[in-house]
Amino acid sequence: MRETGLEKGGIYNHFSSKEQLALESFDYAYELVRQRVRQALAGKYNAIERLLALVSVFQSEVDDPPVAGGCPILNTAIEADDANEVLRDRARAAMDDWRDTIHRTVNRGIERGEVRPAVDAGEVASLLIATLEGALMLSNLYRDPNHMQRAAAHMIRYIETLSIAS
Amino acid sequence: MRETGLEKGGIYNHFSSKEQLALESFDYAYELVRQRVRQALAGKYNAIERLLALVSVFQSEVDDPPVAGGCPILNTAIEADDANEVLRDRARAAMDDWRDTIHRTVNRGIERGEVRPAVDAGEVASLLIATLEGALMLSNLYRDPNHMQRAAAHMIRYIETLSIAS
Repeated sequence: MRETGLEKGGIYNHFSSKEQLALESFDYAYELVRQRVRQALAGKYNAIERLLALVSVFQSEVDDPPVAGGCPILNTAIEADDANEVLRDRARAAMDDWRDTIHRTVNRGIERGEVRPAVDAGEVASLLIATLEGALMLSNLYRDPNHMQRAAAHMIRYIETLSIAS
Repeated sequence: MRETGLEKGGIYNHFSSKEQLALESFDYAYELVRQRVRQALAGKYNAIERLLALVSVFQSEVDDPPVAGGCPILNTAIEADDANEVLRDRARAAMDDWRDTIHRTVNRGIERGEVRPAVDAGEVASLLIATLEGALMLSNLYRDPNHMQRAAAHMIRYIETLSIAS
Protein backbone atom coordinates (compact mmCIF):
# COMPACT_ATOMS: atom_id res chain seq x y z
CA MET A 1 0.00 0.00 0.00
CA ARG A 2 2.88 2.35 0.88
CA GLU A 3 4.59 1.63 -2.45
CA THR A 4 1.65 1.78 -4.82
CA GLY A 5 -0.49 4.47 -3.22
CA LEU A 6 -3.53 2.19 -3.70
CA GLU A 7 -6.07 1.37 -0.99
CA LYS A 8 -6.18 -2.18 0.37
CA GLY A 9 -9.29 -3.09 -1.68
CA GLY A 10 -7.71 -1.65 -4.80
CA ILE A 11 -4.62 -3.79 -4.33
CA TYR A 12 -6.61 -7.00 -3.83
CA ASN A 13 -8.60 -6.30 -7.01
CA HIS A 14 -5.36 -6.44 -8.97
CA PHE A 15 -4.27 -9.88 -7.76
CA SER A 16 -6.00 -13.25 -7.77
CA SER A 17 -4.91 -14.12 -4.24
CA LYS A 18 -2.85 -12.95 -1.29
CA GLU A 19 -0.15 -15.44 -2.33
CA GLN A 20 -0.09 -14.03 -5.86
CA LEU A 21 0.31 -10.55 -4.36
CA ALA A 22 3.22 -11.77 -2.23
CA LEU A 23 4.93 -13.39 -5.24
CA GLU A 24 4.53 -10.36 -7.50
CA SER A 25 5.65 -7.99 -4.73
CA PHE A 26 8.73 -10.12 -4.26
CA ASP A 27 9.53 -10.20 -8.00
CA TYR A 28 9.11 -6.42 -8.23
CA ALA A 29 11.36 -5.70 -5.23
CA TYR A 30 13.95 -8.25 -6.31
CA GLU A 31 14.17 -6.73 -9.80
CA LEU A 32 14.99 -3.34 -8.22
CA VAL A 33 17.84 -4.97 -6.25
CA ARG A 34 19.12 -6.73 -9.41
CA GLN A 35 19.24 -3.41 -11.22
CA ARG A 36 21.47 -2.03 -8.48
CA VAL A 37 23.77 -5.05 -8.72
CA ARG A 38 24.05 -4.67 -12.51
CA GLN A 39 24.81 -0.95 -12.16
CA ALA A 40 27.39 -1.56 -9.44
CA LEU A 41 29.21 -4.24 -11.49
CA ALA A 42 29.04 -2.44 -14.86
CA GLY A 43 32.51 -1.81 -16.26
CA LYS A 44 34.29 -3.63 -13.42
CA TYR A 45 36.29 -6.69 -14.50
CA ASN A 46 38.73 -7.21 -11.65
CA ALA A 47 37.40 -9.79 -9.14
CA ILE A 48 38.42 -7.83 -6.06
CA GLU A 49 36.80 -4.66 -7.41
CA ARG A 50 33.61 -6.60 -8.21
CA LEU A 51 33.39 -8.08 -4.71
CA LEU A 52 33.87 -4.61 -3.22
CA ALA A 53 31.09 -3.32 -5.50
CA LEU A 54 28.72 -5.99 -4.09
CA VAL A 55 29.45 -4.69 -0.58
CA SER A 56 28.47 -1.21 -1.76
CA VAL A 57 25.11 -2.56 -3.01
CA PHE A 58 24.31 -3.78 0.50
CA GLN A 59 25.39 -0.44 1.96
CA SER A 60 23.03 1.34 -0.41
CA GLU A 61 20.16 -0.87 0.84
CA VAL A 62 20.49 0.91 4.22
CA ASP A 63 21.21 4.48 3.06
CA ASP A 64 18.77 4.50 0.15
CA PRO A 65 16.50 1.40 0.23
CA PRO A 66 15.11 0.32 -3.18
CA VAL A 67 11.81 -0.62 -1.45
CA ALA A 68 10.55 0.06 2.08
CA GLY A 69 11.19 -2.65 4.65
CA GLY A 70 14.69 -3.92 3.93
CA CYS A 71 16.09 -6.61 1.66
CA PRO A 72 13.29 -8.49 -0.13
CA ILE A 73 15.31 -11.74 -0.27
CA LEU A 74 16.09 -11.66 3.46
CA ASN A 75 12.50 -10.80 4.38
CA THR A 76 11.05 -13.51 2.17
CA ALA A 77 13.59 -16.09 3.36
CA ILE A 78 12.44 -15.49 6.93
CA GLU A 79 8.73 -14.98 6.35
CA ALA A 80 8.06 -17.77 3.85
CA ASP A 81 8.09 -20.73 6.18
CA ASP A 82 7.37 -24.37 5.40
CA ALA A 83 3.71 -23.51 4.76
CA ASN A 84 4.57 -21.46 1.69
CA GLU A 85 6.95 -23.49 -0.45
CA VAL A 86 6.36 -21.42 -3.62
CA LEU A 87 7.51 -18.20 -2.01
CA ARG A 88 10.34 -20.00 -0.23
CA ASP A 89 11.57 -21.44 -3.55
CA ARG A 90 11.50 -17.94 -5.01
CA ALA A 91 13.67 -16.65 -2.13
CA ARG A 92 16.06 -19.59 -2.59
CA ALA A 93 16.35 -18.95 -6.34
CA ALA A 94 17.15 -15.27 -5.71
CA MET A 95 19.75 -16.21 -3.11
CA ASP A 96 21.21 -18.71 -5.62
CA ASP A 97 21.70 -15.80 -8.06
CA TRP A 98 23.66 -13.89 -5.40
CA ARG A 99 25.79 -16.93 -4.58
CA ASP A 100 26.42 -17.73 -8.27
CA THR A 101 27.58 -14.17 -8.94
CA ILE A 102 30.05 -14.40 -6.06
CA HIS A 103 31.22 -17.92 -7.04
CA ARG A 104 31.87 -16.94 -10.65
CA THR A 105 33.62 -13.72 -9.65
CA VAL A 106 35.97 -15.52 -7.25
CA ASN A 107 36.71 -18.42 -9.61
CA ARG A 108 37.41 -16.15 -12.59
CA GLY A 109 39.59 -14.06 -10.29
CA ILE A 110 41.62 -17.17 -9.47
CA GLU A 111 41.96 -18.05 -13.20
CA ARG A 112 43.15 -14.53 -13.99
CA GLY A 113 45.63 -14.41 -11.12
CA GLU A 114 43.77 -11.72 -9.17
CA VAL A 115 42.60 -13.93 -6.28
CA ARG A 116 44.78 -16.36 -4.30
CA PRO A 117 44.30 -19.92 -5.64
CA ALA A 118 43.55 -21.36 -2.18
CA VAL A 119 40.44 -19.20 -1.76
CA ASP A 120 37.17 -21.17 -1.54
CA ALA A 121 34.42 -19.45 -3.55
CA GLY A 122 31.62 -21.06 -1.54
CA GLU A 123 33.12 -19.78 1.68
CA VAL A 124 33.38 -16.23 0.31
CA ALA A 125 29.71 -16.38 -0.76
CA SER A 126 28.50 -17.65 2.62
CA LEU A 127 30.49 -15.03 4.56
CA LEU A 128 29.65 -12.05 2.38
CA ILE A 129 25.93 -12.80 2.28
CA ALA A 130 25.60 -13.82 5.94
CA THR A 131 27.50 -10.79 7.27
CA LEU A 132 25.81 -8.21 5.09
CA GLU A 133 22.24 -9.59 5.34
CA GLY A 134 22.66 -9.85 9.13
CA ALA A 135 23.93 -6.27 9.28
CA LEU A 136 20.99 -5.09 7.18
CA MET A 137 18.62 -6.72 9.66
CA LEU A 138 20.37 -4.97 12.60
CA SER A 139 20.49 -1.57 10.90
CA ASN A 140 16.79 -1.84 10.04
CA LEU A 141 15.80 -3.08 13.51
CA TYR A 142 17.56 -0.14 15.22
CA ARG A 143 17.25 2.32 12.33
CA ASP A 144 20.98 2.84 12.79
CA PRO A 145 23.35 2.62 9.78
CA ASN A 146 26.31 1.95 12.11
CA HIS A 147 25.86 -1.84 12.09
CA MET A 148 26.06 -1.94 8.29
CA GLN A 149 29.06 0.40 8.24
CA ARG A 150 30.96 -1.87 10.65
CA ALA A 151 30.04 -5.02 8.71
CA ALA A 152 30.98 -3.40 5.39
CA ALA A 153 34.35 -2.26 6.77
CA HIS A 154 35.01 -5.79 8.05
CA MET A 155 34.07 -7.33 4.68
CA ILE A 156 36.27 -4.84 2.79
CA ARG A 157 39.26 -5.92 4.92
CA TYR A 158 38.32 -9.58 4.36
CA ILE A 159 38.03 -9.13 0.57
CA GLU A 160 41.44 -7.48 0.50
CA THR A 161 42.97 -10.59 2.13
CA LEU A 162 41.69 -12.64 -0.84
CA SER A 163 43.77 -10.65 -3.31
CA ILE A 164 46.92 -12.18 -4.72
CA ALA A 165 48.53 -8.83 -3.88
CA SER A 166 47.79 -9.16 -0.14
CA MET B 1 0.53 -25.60 16.73
CA ARG B 2 3.64 -27.70 15.99
CA GLU B 3 5.13 -26.85 19.39
CA THR B 4 2.08 -27.22 21.62
CA GLY B 5 0.24 -30.09 19.95
CA LEU B 6 -2.99 -28.07 20.27
CA GLU B 7 -5.45 -27.45 17.42
CA LYS B 8 -5.79 -23.93 16.06
CA GLY B 9 -9.05 -23.27 17.95
CA GLY B 10 -7.50 -24.59 21.13
CA ILE B 11 -4.58 -22.20 20.80
CA TYR B 12 -6.79 -19.16 20.21
CA ASN B 13 -8.88 -20.01 23.29
CA HIS B 14 -5.74 -19.62 25.40
CA PHE B 15 -4.87 -16.11 24.23
CA SER B 16 -6.86 -12.89 24.15
CA SER B 17 -5.66 -11.93 20.65
CA LYS B 18 -3.38 -12.93 17.81
CA GLU B 19 -0.95 -10.24 18.98
CA GLN B 20 -0.95 -11.65 22.49
CA LEU B 21 -0.21 -15.09 21.03
CA ALA B 22 2.72 -13.65 19.02
CA LEU B 23 4.13 -11.92 22.12
CA GLU B 24 3.85 -14.97 24.36
CA SER B 25 5.29 -17.25 21.66
CA PHE B 26 8.23 -14.88 21.32
CA ASP B 27 8.81 -14.75 25.10
CA TYR B 28 8.68 -18.55 25.32
CA ALA B 29 11.14 -19.09 22.44
CA TYR B 30 13.47 -16.33 23.66
CA GLU B 31 13.61 -17.83 27.16
CA LEU B 32 14.78 -21.14 25.63
CA VAL B 33 17.59 -19.29 23.81
CA ARG B 34 18.56 -17.43 27.02
CA GLN B 35 18.85 -20.75 28.87
CA ARG B 36 21.34 -21.93 26.25
CA VAL B 37 23.36 -18.74 26.59
CA ARG B 38 23.47 -19.10 30.39
CA GLN B 39 24.54 -22.75 30.10
CA ALA B 40 27.21 -21.94 27.52
CA LEU B 41 28.68 -19.12 29.64
CA ALA B 42 28.48 -20.94 33.00
CA GLY B 43 31.91 -21.30 34.60
CA LYS B 44 33.70 -19.33 31.85
CA TYR B 45 35.37 -16.10 33.02
CA ASN B 46 37.92 -15.39 30.31
CA ALA B 47 36.53 -12.93 27.74
CA ILE B 48 37.86 -14.79 24.69
CA GLU B 49 36.44 -18.10 25.97
CA ARG B 50 33.05 -16.41 26.61
CA LEU B 51 32.91 -14.95 23.09
CA LEU B 52 33.75 -18.37 21.63
CA ALA B 53 30.95 -19.88 23.77
CA LEU B 54 28.46 -17.40 22.22
CA VAL B 55 29.49 -18.64 18.76
CA SER B 56 28.72 -22.18 19.89
CA VAL B 57 25.20 -21.11 20.96
CA PHE B 58 24.49 -19.95 17.41
CA GLN B 59 25.92 -23.17 16.01
CA SER B 60 23.58 -25.16 18.26
CA GLU B 61 20.62 -23.18 16.86
CA VAL B 62 21.28 -24.92 13.52
CA ASP B 63 22.20 -28.42 14.72
CA ASP B 64 19.61 -28.65 17.50
CA PRO B 65 17.13 -25.74 17.28
CA PRO B 66 15.47 -24.77 20.60
CA VAL B 67 12.21 -24.10 18.72
CA ALA B 68 11.17 -24.88 15.14
CA GLY B 69 11.73 -22.13 12.58
CA GLY B 70 15.08 -20.60 13.49
CA CYS B 71 16.16 -17.78 15.81
CA PRO B 72 13.11 -16.13 17.44
CA ILE B 73 14.85 -12.74 17.69
CA LEU B 74 15.84 -12.74 14.00
CA ASN B 75 12.38 -13.89 12.89
CA THR B 76 10.61 -11.31 15.02
CA ALA B 77 12.99 -8.53 13.96
CA ILE B 78 12.09 -9.21 10.34
CA GLU B 79 8.40 -10.02 10.73
CA ALA B 80 7.37 -7.30 13.18
CA ASP B 81 7.27 -4.33 10.86
CA ASP B 82 6.22 -0.76 11.60
CA ALA B 83 2.62 -1.89 12.05
CA ASN B 84 3.48 -3.89 15.18
CA GLU B 85 5.58 -1.68 17.41
CA VAL B 86 5.00 -3.80 20.56
CA LEU B 87 6.49 -6.92 19.01
CA ARG B 88 9.25 -4.89 17.38
CA ASP B 89 10.19 -3.36 20.76
CA ARG B 90 10.33 -6.86 22.20
CA ALA B 91 12.74 -7.98 19.45
CA ARG B 92 14.85 -4.87 20.02
CA ALA B 93 14.99 -5.49 23.79
CA ALA B 94 16.12 -9.08 23.21
CA MET B 95 18.77 -7.93 20.75
CA ASP B 96 19.89 -5.33 23.33
CA ASP B 97 20.47 -8.19 25.80
CA TRP B 98 22.73 -9.93 23.26
CA ARG B 99 24.64 -6.74 22.53
CA ASP B 100 25.01 -5.90 26.27
CA THR B 101 26.40 -9.35 27.00
CA ILE B 102 29.01 -8.91 24.26
CA HIS B 103 29.83 -5.31 25.28
CA ARG B 104 30.36 -6.24 28.92
CA THR B 105 32.42 -9.31 28.02
CA VAL B 106 34.75 -7.33 25.76
CA ASN B 107 35.11 -4.37 28.14
CA ARG B 108 35.83 -6.58 31.16
CA GLY B 109 38.29 -8.49 29.00
CA ILE B 110 40.10 -5.22 28.27
CA GLU B 111 40.18 -4.32 32.01
CA ARG B 112 41.59 -7.76 32.87
CA GLY B 113 44.23 -7.66 30.14
CA GLU B 114 42.69 -10.49 28.10
CA VAL B 115 41.52 -8.37 25.15
CA ARG B 116 43.59 -5.77 23.27
CA PRO B 117 42.75 -2.27 24.59
CA ALA B 118 42.10 -0.87 21.07
CA VAL B 119 39.18 -3.28 20.49
CA ASP B 120 35.79 -1.58 20.09
CA ALA B 121 33.09 -3.53 21.97
CA GLY B 122 30.28 -2.13 19.80
CA GLU B 123 32.06 -3.29 16.67
CA VAL B 124 32.51 -6.80 18.06
CA ALA B 125 28.80 -6.95 18.93
CA SER B 126 27.68 -5.79 15.49
CA LEU B 127 29.97 -8.22 13.66
CA LEU B 128 29.25 -11.28 15.79
CA ILE B 129 25.49 -10.83 15.70
CA ALA B 130 25.27 -9.82 12.02
CA THR B 131 27.48 -12.69 10.80
CA LEU B 132 25.88 -15.41 12.89
CA GLU B 133 22.24 -14.32 12.45
CA GLY B 134 22.84 -14.01 8.71
CA ALA B 135 24.40 -17.48 8.61
CA LEU B 136 21.46 -18.90 10.56
CA MET B 137 19.10 -17.45 7.95
CA LEU B 138 21.14 -19.05 5.12
CA SER B 139 21.44 -22.44 6.83
CA ASN B 140 17.69 -22.47 7.49
CA LEU B 141 16.79 -21.30 3.97
CA TYR B 142 18.86 -24.08 2.37
CA ARG B 143 18.60 -26.58 5.24
CA ASP B 144 22.39 -26.78 4.98
CA PRO B 145 24.57 -26.39 8.10
CA ASN B 146 27.58 -25.48 5.94
CA HIS B 147 26.82 -21.74 5.93
CA MET B 148 26.81 -21.61 9.73
CA GLN B 149 29.97 -23.72 9.94
CA ARG B 150 31.82 -21.30 7.64
CA ALA B 151 30.54 -18.25 9.51
CA ALA B 152 31.43 -19.79 12.88
CA ALA B 153 34.96 -20.66 11.69
CA HIS B 154 35.40 -17.07 10.43
CA MET B 155 34.15 -15.62 13.74
CA ILE B 156 36.45 -17.92 15.76
CA ARG B 157 39.45 -16.61 13.78
CA TYR B 158 38.18 -13.03 14.29
CA ILE B 159 37.72 -13.50 18.06
CA GLU B 160 41.25 -14.88 18.31
CA THR B 161 42.60 -11.65 16.76
CA LEU B 162 40.99 -9.71 19.66
CA SER B 163 43.10 -11.54 22.23
CA ILE B 164 46.04 -9.75 23.81
CA ALA B 165 47.96 -12.97 23.08
CA SER B 166 47.37 -12.69 19.31
